[in-house]
Amino acid sequence: MTTTPASDHWVLTLSCPDRPGIVRAVAGAIADHGGNITESKQFGDPDTGLFFMRVQGETTIARDTLLATLTPLAEQFEWTWNLDTVGRRIPTIIMVSKAAHALNDLLFQQRAARLPIEVVAVVGNHNDLADLATFYGVPFHHIPVTADTKPQAEAELLALVQSTGAELVVLARYMQVLSDTLCRALEGRVINIHHSFLPSFKGARPYHRAHDRGVKLIGATSHYVTADLDEGPIIEQDIDRVDHEMSVEEFIALGQDVERRVLSRAVAWHAQHRVLMNGHKTVVFR
Amino acid sequence: MTTTPASDHWVLTLSCPDRPGIVRAVAGAIADHGGNITESKQFGDPDTGLFFMRVQGETTIARDTLLATLTPLAEQFEWTWNLDTVGRRIPTIIMVSKAAHALNDLLFQQRAARLPIEVVAVVGNHNDLADLATFYGVPFHHIPVTADTKPQAEAELLALVQSTGAELVVLARYMQVLSDTLCRALEGRVINIHHSFLPSFKGARPYHRAHDRGVKLIGATSHYVTADLDEGPIIEQDIDRVDHEMSVEEFIALGQDVERRVLSRAVAWHAQHRVLMNGHKTVVFR
Amino acid sequence: MTTTPASDHWVLTLSCPDRPGIVRAVAGAIADHGGNITESKQFGDPDTGLFFMRVQGETTIARDTLLATLTPLAEQFEWTWNLDTVGRRIPTIIMVSKAAHALNDLLFQQRAARLPIEVVAVVGNHNDLADLATFYGVPFHHIPVTADTKPQAEAELLALVQSTGAELVVLARYMQVLSDTLCRALEGRVINIHHSFLPSFKGARPYHRAHDRGVKLIGATSHYVTADLDEGPIIEQDIDRVDHEMSVEEFIALGQDVERRVLSRAVAWHAQHRVLMNGHKTVVFR
Amino acid sequence: MTTTPASDHWVLTLSCPDRPGIVRAVAGAIADHGGNITESKQFGDPDTGLFFMRVQGETTIARDTLLATLTPLAEQFEWTWNLDTVGRRIPTIIMVSKAAHALNDLLFQQRAARLPIEVVAVVGNHNDLADLATFYGVPFHHIPVTADTKPQAEAELLALVQSTGAELVVLARYMQVLSDTLCRALEGRVINIHHSFLPSFKGARPYHRAHDRGVKLIGATSHYVTADLDEGPIIEQDIDRVDHEMSVEEFIALGQDVERRVLSRAVAWHAQHRVLMNGHKTVVFR
Repeated sequence: MTTTPASDHWVLTLSCPDRPGIVRAVAGAIADHGGNITESKQFGDPDTGLFFMRVQGETTIARDTLLATLTPLAEQFEWTWNLDTVGRRIPTIIMVSKAAHALNDLLFQQRAARLPIEVVAVVGNHNDLADLATFYGVPFHHIPVTADTKPQAEAELLALVQSTGAELVVLARYMQVLSDTLCRALEGRVINIHHSFLPSFKGARPYHRAHDRGVKLIGATSHYVTADLDEGPIIEQDIDRVDHEMSVEEFIALGQDVERRVLSRAVAWHAQHRVLMNGHKTVVFR
Repeated sequence: MTTTPASDHWVLTLSCPDRPGIVRAVAGAIADHGGNITESKQFGDPDTGLFFMRVQGETTIARDTLLATLTPLAEQFEWTWNLDTVGRRIPTIIMVSKAAHALNDLLFQQRAARLPIEVVAVVGNHNDLADLATFYGVPFHHIPVTADTKPQAEAELLALVQSTGAELVVLARYMQVLSDTLCRALEGRVINIHHSFLPSFKGARPYHRAHDRGVKLIGATSHYVTADLDEGPIIEQDIDRVDHEMSVEEFIALGQDVERRVLSRAVAWHAQHRVLMNGHKTVVFR
Repeated sequence: MTTTPASDHWVLTLSCPDRPGIVRAVAGAIADHGGNITESKQFGDPDTGLFFMRVQGETTIARDTLLATLTPLAEQFEWTWNLDTVGRRIPTIIMVSKAAHALNDLLFQQRAARLPIEVVAVVGNHNDLADLATFYGVPFHHIPVTADTKPQAEAELLALVQSTGAELVVLARYMQVLSDTLCRALEGRVINIHHSFLPSFKGARPYHRAHDRGVKLIGATSHYVTADLDEGPIIEQDIDRVDHEMSVEEFIALGQDVERRVLSRAVAWHAQHRVLMNGHKTVVFR
Repeated sequence: MTTTPASDHWVLTLSCPDRPGIVRAVAGAIADHGGNITESKQFGDPDTGLFFMRVQGETTIARDTLLATLTPLAEQFEWTWNLDTVGRRIPTIIMVSKAAHALNDLLFQQRAARLPIEVVAVVGNHNDLADLATFYGVPFHHIPVTADTKPQAEAELLALVQSTGAELVVLARYMQVLSDTLCRALEGRVINIHHSFLPSFKGARPYHRAHDRGVKLIGATSHYVTADLDEGPIIEQDIDRVDHEMSVEEFIALGQDVERRVLSRAVAWHAQHRVLMNGHKTVVFR
């Protein structure tokens, strides 16, 4: 976060125990500095008693001054909070195996400036997608994984996260399961796309099981990765219609478009700081 | 099935082991009698090796003659088949508890001639919906159910099925679980609406569990009832979008509209003979 | 608006020229009285320079005191504003012709407490829907309309609006076109459902024209009525998929379900004060 | 079309005046040669009196023999018909300007074997997308267009169509309007994607006009190109939801994903011979 003498467009996200006075305090702090709110959303969860807020604003004061103004409020109201620049491209590592559709969409959207991420590396346990990464000017790292080499592979990934300053890891149909250790090390920073409408069809081969069950809709779910496979907080889901004529291969083909869309939306919202954690659920200020 | 001297618009549905010659045989039989096909759909399932067909046609011959023409084909090709009049209103019993939304839609659609069913009775284990049935001119039967009285209640229902000639029983948010015996007695003739997107959230309180899981879509599923709760062949499903702001009550309210739509579609397709059984799945010639 | 000694759950809506300080002022006023915000949404339109806000809050002060607190702010910031009780059922007149689907849904939703309106009268230019209104305990007024009697008919309607205290008039597939005079007299208080996806197929027989055009989706649009037919600010729209097999009658049947849904959503949001006017468009704080 | 001694999987499409006997004749011809139908769909349009059919089958006879069998039927029943190999990749030219999203999706789908086309050339009136075409190994032709050079540019395109044997031209957000002459020369072989839900917002800047109108849904339409701009037979449409918060740029970004999807579906169906012309409408055997 740098100081900006001219107009600074920032985004503040916070969660805390719900109580009166939070909004007045934030609005007051902004107004006191002649700031202007460009977007503001909030939610008080009656079940958990938590309050969530996402405020975008423009001020001409230095970022440090803004921080100094907000810090006492954060302490007073016990915020879990974050202050960032609107539109800052989040350094991101995308992990892939062989399927290209999700990676292709993320790289395309990033280049078209529709996704506020900066893909600093693509990591594949196979080499298949190296040329796609190269086309988009992104370094590709081939990190194979076997049962024996998994710890070293995960260590290599963590090292890459550190060396690149990656703040987000996206599993774009990456087929290896992350160890509990890695999940905890990267908690809150890993987004996965699961090719089913969770909680239906957790685990492997969801399209085959969906086809066998005779469902009339298939779906995809993007979620934060936790140690429990496919159980992490859901960010976004979507579906498409299938029918008796379609083979499993056709389910897969159709599903790939849903996966692509759902993952790209989730990554965009996360990068825009629109997703806040609410226990095992998410608040999405879309 | 009655004989009709003038133009007879009938619908034939059949399933059988897939093999060459079925279509030619059916089309030939129709053409031989100067008949005209008004709609025809077919599907060969490579997984089960079964062939399915639904043909609507118009002929001027007597229905008995048509039957006599088709019966040898049915034997030759080992059909499981049905011949009916297009648009014949299927005698139907609707079972309800307290929630009115599904019943209200079915009765309204029936009166508007959008649903080819004839509701011969509404059965409720509570009395709440008696006036709604009465408004639509349908007899209401209050058949309460407790753990002790369940066998008698089910016997009463079966007797009603017989006395009314009902060919279809629709569980319109009927909250009692049918016994295995009843399921088998009415096999293939009972359609239920489950208020979740199966196989997610089988059983009780699906909206509460969906809300707790933090899903971003809720759904409803209509299916044929089998002895396994919520496991029967799925006929239709649909969803609607929810978000973090919505309470469980709001999930329920939104979900009721999905339930209503999904059940009405399923009942319409079944009554139009558009749904064929394919193992534990359905072929829906919509 | 009555004074409430206990907890008063109110909703404030406002629009005004956008400028810094509005949110702090509102939040401050609420906090000063020990109030708690239960929901808050806002939007600043960069195109029109207008600011919109909808705040729900709970305070224990008298309503008059709250008004007294807000009035100076309203003057200072030049608000167009409204303060009402959350959940107050808006007195509503529903106008119909022969088609029952929209009326049936509104009356059903109202009785199920899903629609915060109180239907004080149903007005039909035909008598067909009298029994439906009666079933729901709502007075039915048959006000026929011919080219000659239109002025008297509209005068009768206006008189009914006044005598019932109706704050909203819903045209639920009412087939007469309101005169410019009536539109102006009831400006902002009349919601219509048009059976197409505007701006496609304005005017008469939209399903026939959609069928002829060979569109693959049909839709419905609810909007505020203005003197320009089908041009008023759009509140909500939705669609459903059609195909080459469907006749015009099937378009109509499918479309009725979209009309029903779209109209009910629009009426609910209006009654909850979630719809604000933004020139010829709407802001919908759904 | 080549002769195939082993199993030949072919697809027959036909349209003709509706009359009894067509299906029996086709089914009979197939059965006579020991063939097996793998998919069959048909539709008789009561409005136009036309009959449409798409049959996929497998036979072991030579293609010439099959043709010889079908030709007399074609004459007898006055078919407009086509016989092709299932899965044959249709030689296709894609025309682009600057926007990459549609081209990117078509090339990606083609490489993933999800689109039965063979892109023989990409033609752009700008050079921007040359590298994308090159990445996918497809020749890129820069054919600039000004008011003066348009006839030569179109002649160059026609020459390319001939030299490559292209059977389909896809306008993937190509911003030049084709002349009447070119439209007629390529009649039935040009698919365009228009970035609105036709017939709303024909012509230029549809997203700006949609944004100004305050619609709550935006859409895209793929259609065959005729001399009347944006009037050609519609193949497919889809929509996505927008709201008051979204700027025109956000409409455009969201709309691009709809355009991409709708165009790819239309091209796939056309290439699979699933789209038949029915006057100014299409029959889509999807």
